[in-house]
Amino acid sequence: MDRMTAPAHALVGTHADTLAKARAAIAERGYWSAFPESPSPRVYGESAAADGKKAFDAYLGSAFPLEQPGTKGEVSSEVSPFGVDLGVTYPHGDVDALVLAARAAMPEWRDAGPDVRTAVCIEILTRLHEHIFELANAVHVTTGQAFVMAFQAGGAHALDRALEAIAYAHAEMTRHPATADWEKPAGKGDPLRMSKTFHVVPRGVALVIGCNTFPTWNSYPGLFASLATGNAVIVKPHPGAVLPLAITVKYAREVLEDAGFDPNLVLLAPEAPDEKIATTLATHPEVKIIDFTGSTAYGEWLEQNARQASVYTEKAGVNTIVVDSTDDFRGMCSNIAFSLTLYSGQMCTTPQNILVPRDGIETESGHLGFDDVAAGIAGAVGKLTGDDARAVELTGAIVNDAVVSRIDAARSHGTVLLDSREIAHPTYPGAVVRTPLLLTQDAANEGMFDSEWFGPITFIVATDSTAQSVDIFRRIVGRKGALTAAVYSTDPGVLDAMEAATIDVGVHLSANLTGGVFVNQSAAFSDFHASGANAAANASLTDGAYVANLFRVVQSRRHN
Amino acid sequence: MDRMTAPAHALVGTHADTLAKARAAIAERGYWSAFPESPSPRVYGESAAADGKKAFDAYLGSAFPLEQPGTKGEVSSEVSPFGVDLGVTYPHGDVDALVLAARAAMPEWRDAGPDVRTAVCIEILTRLHEHIFELANAVHVTTGQAFVMAFQAGGAHALDRALEAIAYAHAEMTRHPATADWEKPAGKGDPLRMSKTFHVVPRGVALVIGCNTFPTWNSYPGLFASLATGNAVIVKPHPGAVLPLAITVKYAREVLEDAGFDPNLVLLAPEAPDEKIATTLATHPEVKIIDFTGSTAYGEWLEQNARQASVYTEKAGVNTIVVDSTDDFRGMCSNIAFSLTLYSGQMCTTPQNILVPRDGIETESGHLGFDDVAAGIAGAVGKLTGDDARAVELTGAIVNDAVVSRIDAARSHGTVLLDSREIAHPTYPGAVVRTPLLLTQDAANEGMFDSEWFGPITFIVATDSTAQSVDIFRRIVGRKGALTAAVYSTDPGVLDAMEAATIDVGVHLSANLTGGVFVNQSAAFSDFHASGANAAANASLTDGAYVANLFRVVQSRRHN
Repeated sequence: MDRMTAPAHALVGTHADTLAKARAAIAERGYWSAFPESPSPRVYGESAAADGKKAFDAYLGSAFPLEQPGTKGEVSSEVSPFGVDLGVTYPHGDVDALVLAARAAMPEWRDAGPDVRTAVCIEILTRLHEHIFELANAVHVTTGQAFVMAFQAGGAHALDRALEAIAYAHAEMTRHPATADWEKPAGKGDPLRMSKTFHVVPRGVALVIGCNTFPTWNSYPGLFASLATGNAVIVKPHPGAVLPLAITVKYAREVLEDAGFDPNLVLLAPEAPDEKIATTLATHPEVKIIDFTGSTAYGEWLEQNARQASVYTEKAGVNTIVVDSTDDFRGMCSNIAFSLTLYSGQMCTTPQNILVPRDGIETESGHLGFDDVAAGIAGAVGKLTGDDARAVELTGAIVNDAVVSRIDAARSHGTVLLDSREIAHPTYPGAVVRTPLLLTQDAANEGMFDSEWFGPITFIVATDSTAQSVDIFRRIVGRKGALTAAVYSTDPGVLDAMEAATIDVGVHLSANLTGGVFVNQSAAFSDFHASGANAAANASLTDGAYVANLFRVVQSRRHN
Repeated sequence: MDRMTAPAHALVGTHADTLAKARAAIAERGYWSAFPESPSPRVYGESAAADGKKAFDAYLGSAFPLEQPGTKGEVSSEVSPFGVDLGVTYPHGDVDALVLAARAAMPEWRDAGPDVRTAVCIEILTRLHEHIFELANAVHVTTGQAFVMAFQAGGAHALDRALEAIAYAHAEMTRHPATADWEKPAGKGDPLRMSKTFHVVPRGVALVIGCNTFPTWNSYPGLFASLATGNAVIVKPHPGAVLPLAITVKYAREVLEDAGFDPNLVLLAPEAPDEKIATTLATHPEVKIIDFTGSTAYGEWLEQNARQASVYTEKAGVNTIVVDSTDDFRGMCSNIAFSLTLYSGQMCTTPQNILVPRDGIETESGHLGFDDVAAGIAGAVGKLTGDDARAVELTGAIVNDAVVSRIDAARSHGTVLLDSREIAHPTYPGAVVRTPLLLTQDAANEGMFDSEWFGPITFIVATDSTAQSVDIFRRIVGRKGALTAAVYSTDPGVLDAMEAATIDVGVHLSANLTGGVFVNQSAAFSDFHASGANAAANASLTDGAYVANLFRVVQSRRHN
């Protein structure tokens, strides 16, 4: 029934070393990675890239190879930001049939116990890693991420995050022994003796609702933590980014079947136009866990209405940088510029508001005025985006028309410092590419920048002082939340004040980033992404607080 | 700001050994206890009982000594089930003033870090333990529990459970280091180096809503886990059992002040008649954690309406025993009888339905018919309650009139096997004492016994077979939930089938209890009370899943 009585499974030994290393990494929170982030042939072999591209191409214009219960017709919804004609059709499922199949697959999976489930999950990651170029192409083409970013964020880093969540799940499921002997002294008589057994039982069917921009990176922690803890998982991809999760589900099902389990533990539920399948699934009585990344409106709807489930949401926020002073002005500007430009600012972690004193800041080369600081950041962005062919490898493409419209709308919300520019993509003629729009604003007009402007839109805001900058940060982020915050200062007092502010409003802080680490990136096994302590997200998926509630412990006891 | 920088506090050393032992106990789940459960003078000293009684008596007919912010008048609401005239008045607080004071106390407490908070919490337990007889008298007189039970469940066991929750909280807060160094290889260049700091931040103000029957035992895990993780706690006692929690709050505030912290980290919020202060507090925007024990109706109301908070509820359930066979019929009957009689069945863990095959069961002395089994259990209850003076030391008193009415109403829901009897309490003339009511029923009339009948009301149900008994157990408990389940069988197949059923419906199981362990009792540090996996409770307060969500981790990082 559990670790004690479950038959040994060959995969447990296969992945014991990886699990041990991942378990050590989550306890130490230093640097560690299981999946190399460089797509170089020196790492992955000469043919890996071409093989992966070929496998990816084979999906195009075809019915995706996935045999699931309850399939009724097919759907095709993806529009590539690069203008690539995808034409992949996916099996469309009946919700009740999917949920029934998921539910039926669970008891045997539950009874296999934590060690076996963990090993099978790591085997799925291993299988996905063997197909990382295939996966990276799918992420690239559906999200608009440049290929290298898609390989890293959508491939290697997503797998690292999955392993991180699995490691937490294993730690949590095994924090108690599977059995314990209890012996209570009873005065002069024989002690009372009991033998106790602790079973890890899953919550029910888990629903993972993917997003368009990071279909794998945002979905993998929830998917794999729920699966490792014994739940079956239904993956509902964003209509614009189905393929990366379809590939994920395909290999997960293959591994589950190879390992002797019901493949219906992982199911894909792509939606037909206007079907609202997410809502139907999210309110199904058997769905007990929901993991959602997307809009604040739908996240709040889920929180209010999916009452039978534990609902975990990552929503909008207002990421903010407070600039007070620096001893490396050029490093600061180029570091910020990289974060603004990467994937056209379409990361949930991209800074939006940069708060700078209107009287300027002190730097290694003396005082610089507000306009100098703004010009420094704008110049660095301009440099990164000056050459079209190089620019698109950073910016990628714009994920959908709403972002293009938002750029246009934003121009009237400040003084244009650096205008957004349309770029022709040298490889993809149909790609929609835009460089970042930088605006200046005054702190007095807080209503112009106090909400999320998702996309390559940045406000450089003139404040009365750094103290006011910190106040504005506290106020806006206290209300709207954020996934990232940064500060630049040579003054320990300012660094402390900003750290205190981030603790109060519950946002992770990066201080004085001027080199190869960027505020919009978090390193699996060391950095936490989202804190669960502000309005932008109610959970940090790769931690104990999340995984501990994906299962329960049910105990039995008898005298021995 | 945290463990790294927080000043050392003398109490950390004082309680290091207790914490280490409690941490070991929660990891091993064997037998351990920090607070002796015997009220014997050999354990507590010759004068302890008299001193405690004297301290308790001093509260009677007086204003309870508690100085809190926002006090507006006083309230007095307790009616003792023993007919003792309490007449204690409590300061009545303005909700906003209480919440404001609680909120204001938090930053310094948060910044003291996990080790200091944990040590101060253990110091509070130590202080309460010094006053355990005072506390036990308060529990005894307000709940109707016999004195020894009040001393154990309301005193020693409640303190053990508090320590268990504190140990989990400490384990969870310190599962990550307070700081970590991150060094990422960067090809031929210098590695990227960062120093990371992880702050434990509380969720907000915690609200603990106590119950009438177990004011301390049910409240302590939530109270102390929330406090240890940095939250301020407002304790809203049941109007019928204020004194035990008032005493708790009084000593907690004393210790906090002695340790250099704001006593408003723990506040008492007794309610005026019909004030509905629990509802006002539960929906206050600053209240982020709610821990409630009580009715299903109000628990569900909280879950639906206190949307700004994490809501933990323990509600009604239908505790069930499946009797299949036994090799110790007398032991079985006396063990069950004790559970039915203790505190007049007014425990959330008391069995209600005993499912027995209508064709009878096999025992060590051959086959016994259904009527023989029923008579055996009724006879054992009769024996325990035959002598009034001894009976009341088990039954205690009936907590309120609703239970008396329920006994009367239940008589028409089956055939009376053993009628409930009124007993005159030899010590308390005003006490309302009732012995258990045992009814027989037929499985065909499931509607008669498929809901909770809180109080000394038991249905012995004739089923077609043990297989049907297990089916009924699955059906009723699957729908209504339960806190306990038990099985008696000499057949390993039946034990396995029942264990499988309890895993499926998420209820803890006790098998073949015939000696000094009872299904309605759980041992802190070894047994889990409630699983969080069925309708009777959505959390098991002393575990990782609960404590992990009482705080968040907020990180900062900078190059070093």
